[in-house]
Amino acid sequence: MWKPDRSIKQPIYQQITDYMEHRISFGEFPPGSVLPSERKLADLLGVNRSTIVQAYEELRASGLVESAKGSGTRVSMHKWGITPKQTPNWKQYAEGGTFLPNLPFIRRIREELRNRESIIDFASGELSPDLFPNAIIRDLLQNKPFQEHLGYEDPQGFSPLRSSLVSFLEQHLHIHATDSSILITSGSQQSLFLITQCLLSPGDAVAIEDPSYCYSLPMFQSAGLRLFRLPVDEHGINPEDILTLYRRHRIRMIFVNPNFQNPTGSTLTLERRVRLLEIASELGVPIVEDDPFTLTALDGNPPPTLKSLDTTGNVLYIGSLSKIAASGLRIGWLIAPQAVVSRLTDARQQMDFGLSSIPQWVATQFIEEGHFENQIIKLREALLEKRNEMIRGLQQLIQENVSFTPPQGGLNMWCKINGSVDDFKLLDEAIKKGVIFVPGSVYGSDHGYIRLCFARPQLDEIMPGLNLLKEALQLPCLVRSSRIPAAFT
Amino acid sequence: MWKPDRSIKQPIYQQITDYMEHRISFGEFPPGSVLPSERKLADLLGVNRSTIVQAYEELRASGLVESAKGSGTRVSMHKWGITPKQTPNWKQYAEGGTFLPNLPFIRRIREELRNRESIIDFASGELSPDLFPNAIIRDLLQNKPFQEHLGYEDPQGFSPLRSSLVSFLEQHLHIHATDSSILITSGSQQSLFLITQCLLSPGDAVAIEDPSYCYSLPMFQSAGLRLFRLPVDEHGINPEDILTLYRRHRIRMIFVNPNFQNPTGSTLTLERRVRLLEIASELGVPIVEDDPFTLTALDGNPPPTLKSLDTTGNVLYIGSLSKIAASGLRIGWLIAPQAVVSRLTDARQQMDFGLSSIPQWVATQFIEEGHFENQIIKLREALLEKRNEMIRGLQQLIQENVSFTPPQGGLNMWCKINGSVDDFKLLDEAIKKGVIFVPGSVYGSDHGYIRLCFARPQLDEIMPGLNLLKEALQLPCLVRSSRIPAAFT
Ligand SMILES: Cc1ncc(COP(=O)(O)O)c(C=O)c1O
Ligand SMILES: Cc1ncc(COP(=O)(O)O)c(C=O)c1O
Repeated sequence: MWKPDRSIKQPIYQQITDYMEHRISFGEFPPGSVLPSERKLADLLGVNRSTIVQAYEELRASGLVESAKGSGTRVSMHKWGITPKQTPNWKQYAEGGTFLPNLPFIRRIREELRNRESIIDFASGELSPDLFPNAIIRDLLQNKPFQEHLGYEDPQGFSPLRSSLVSFLEQHLHIHATDSSILITSGSQQSLFLITQCLLSPGDAVAIEDPSYCYSLPMFQSAGLRLFRLPVDEHGINPEDILTLYRRHRIRMIFVNPNFQNPTGSTLTLERRVRLLEIASELGVPIVEDDPFTLTALDGNPPPTLKSLDTTGNVLYIGSLSKIAASGLRIGWLIAPQAVVSRLTDARQQMDFGLSSIPQWVATQFIEEGHFENQIIKLREALLEKRNEMIRGLQQLIQENVSFTPPQGGLNMWCKINGSVDDFKLLDEAIKKGVIFVPGSVYGSDHGYIRLCFARPQLDEIMPGLNLLKEALQLPCLVRSSRIPAAFT
Repeated sequence: MWKPDRSIKQPIYQQITDYMEHRISFGEFPPGSVLPSERKLADLLGVNRSTIVQAYEELRASGLVESAKGSGTRVSMHKWGITPKQTPNWKQYAEGGTFLPNLPFIRRIREELRNRESIIDFASGELSPDLFPNAIIRDLLQNKPFQEHLGYEDPQGFSPLRSSLVSFLEQHLHIHATDSSILITSGSQQSLFLITQCLLSPGDAVAIEDPSYCYSLPMFQSAGLRLFRLPVDEHGINPEDILTLYRRHRIRMIFVNPNFQNPTGSTLTLERRVRLLEIASELGVPIVEDDPFTLTALDGNPPPTLKSLDTTGNVLYIGSLSKIAASGLRIGWLIAPQAVVSRLTDARQQMDFGLSSIPQWVATQFIEEGHFENQIIKLREALLEKRNEMIRGLQQLIQENVSFTPPQGGLNMWCKINGSVDDFKLLDEAIKKGVIFVPGSVYGSDHGYIRLCFARPQLDEIMPGLNLLKEALQLPCLVRSSRIPAAFT
């Protein structure tokens, strides 16, 4: 990213004026669009706000931009005397399409995380950077010559990776797959995307857990699906609820995350698992098992997956390396019947032509050279330590404010806030204090819950982070409102 | 992929029986679905067809599968005595969704290429493997330690890559971009996908070249767009046609591939370029410039891009490393105004969480270490040689059958077949002879054209390939039918 050059004679504000003029004239900010706020641009370029004020002043003087009441600085409609006959109305184009934007709260959180490096992050549902197998992957890249084809890769996925996954899944999860039944995707995320886009039609009813990661994804609404809720208790969903939903709405698919569920951390009991499979098979309704967390089981005893118990082929299984190795590899997979694999392979071929061979090759080597076993042992130890620290912190600092059930795996702690608290207001205040989390409502739950990820912060950030949260919780302004965002009603 | 083990005592047919039983019981082939044909499975596993016949015989004897008249071998509805109450109707699910499958001819071609290694490939629009910078990328991976973050990458793209592209675009294409105006995508393909999904709404009218790469992509129809044609002659589209289309259909976007167009190879004249920009700006309609080929200019003098002439910001520019370095990196980019970049970044974040950092880092190093200059010089030499060989072959072998204009860049030779020939029938016959190409109708053109990619085959395969094509062309059965696939009417 461009930064002003402090070693040259031209004053910083002048360099910034030129830079912004360049961006405007190049069309990045078309006539009528709003420039970044002075504070934001100052942060981005690492200069004082007053420098930006001066640069914007220059731009205003040249007629290129103008101040707009309440909406900051705007690019003039008549720039340099040339009136572009008509620039496309980019704002309107950007509002087009059937694909809905991310929830405002998700965008807000992402924005805060990007702009404020010092904030303590209980929001991102991922591992801290030190928990990735950094050294192993670096060594692997350096010591193993890359000899693979650099052309378009098979859109179903790099064939050696599919073969490695067959053994991996058998060994670690007792799932019997064949390499032709596996589709490699960009994380679990793309598997979910392909399923919602290609196997379901607008108007189809689907059942999803409540709360659920899926509610945080406008992807489901973008596909025009009607969402029905399966309430999650300490032991996951109650399978009998599916019968009721099916009778009323003829649901076409069931989405579940049975092990260490995101966000609640709950795990479906074996009894409920068996019943769920029974009901799905009776109704002929497929189950999508979204399973990123099973191998994080803190006691080293992963609960069985639905897929490993599935005798009728009703389960579409989605896995990923994101939460157990490295999310930046973008390696996930779907195990499905032939007809589904070929349909989704065909669709993804059109969308992105498949994944690069390089990270697929890295993932293959990582698994084949036996690094996974060590990685998962280290990871569990670290996660256990972090989870325990978070339990300790919650008990010591805000015992009277929250209730929670310690999760036995996964990355998150799901906390109920005792008393009447608006989780969005709490988020506002917490951000001001310097700590960030995800409000429970993002996952479709009622107000008064928050999701704290214990995997993302460093061990020694957990206590200070909870202290800041405590301060926020004690603010008198946190009275509960009944405002619930439209998407979740 | 699983293969029978010839070193063990169990007979091959028995191993295959067990393997298929496993695939069936695991749900990959649900009750009622059709197994691969005996010939196909034999090819895949590298055994005689009679071995497969024997294996299928065993499966039939066990009641697991049954012969179905005219449709091969089917999995029985009652397997092992257990009647699954209802398996999901996977076939029906696979037909769901709003996203249309690839054209049957594209699937057919892909299938043939996968199953027959010896076929001469004039169909795949890509470089032959030896033209990728294989050694450089291998060295780079080995000698440069990978120190980047292995967590979720910025969904807008790896920031150092965006910075490198700013200089790359300036230096090679005279395009002024800033790193905040660039979105990195999985090839150009994903840029096109995001634009059709997120900037346009169902029912919107768009103008595309005729013939055009875009016609080969059901993606445009999947987004519900109404497509209107801009006929391409030797010098590209005629901009005045846009005015007519606009008046009649209020087109909302114009898709063009101005340099070395796929499939025709034609390049828009400077005069038409200027007029195109003028008209687009007058109408306030954005132009999408899909530009994978400019730097392949065989004479080393790349024609100007529209983006470099764009003074009003009407052009959304799409580029890619696929045709000039390596398609397996899956690195493409879109240059667009702020509002568009943030909308598409947000959408792609939901679809795939962004690209892996590893290939993005590789692409950055490749550009930063100055390897591109050499790569492009070598590439142009090789492409020139292959193009010349193809011209020679066409002239020597089938001069009386085809007419063509030698392309000055890109990867393809667009040939008109003289006389009445059905291009789909010709494809059938050519495949039987051992050579494959893409029928022109796939690109929306009338029958009687074919696209021959000269970049994909090896230099010494071009002449033999054209010889086989000649044999196919001489078959008496090639009378023209009027069958035109529905998608192109
Ligand atoms: C339940 C669940 N599914 C899917 C994903 C997507 O992850 P990825 O695409 O990195 O595998 C996440 C990420 O947080 C998740 O929590
Ligand atoms: C005109 C054109 N655009 C886009 C693409 C997509 O290529 P990629 O996604 O590899 O950049 C191609 C590939 O053949 C093409 O010919």
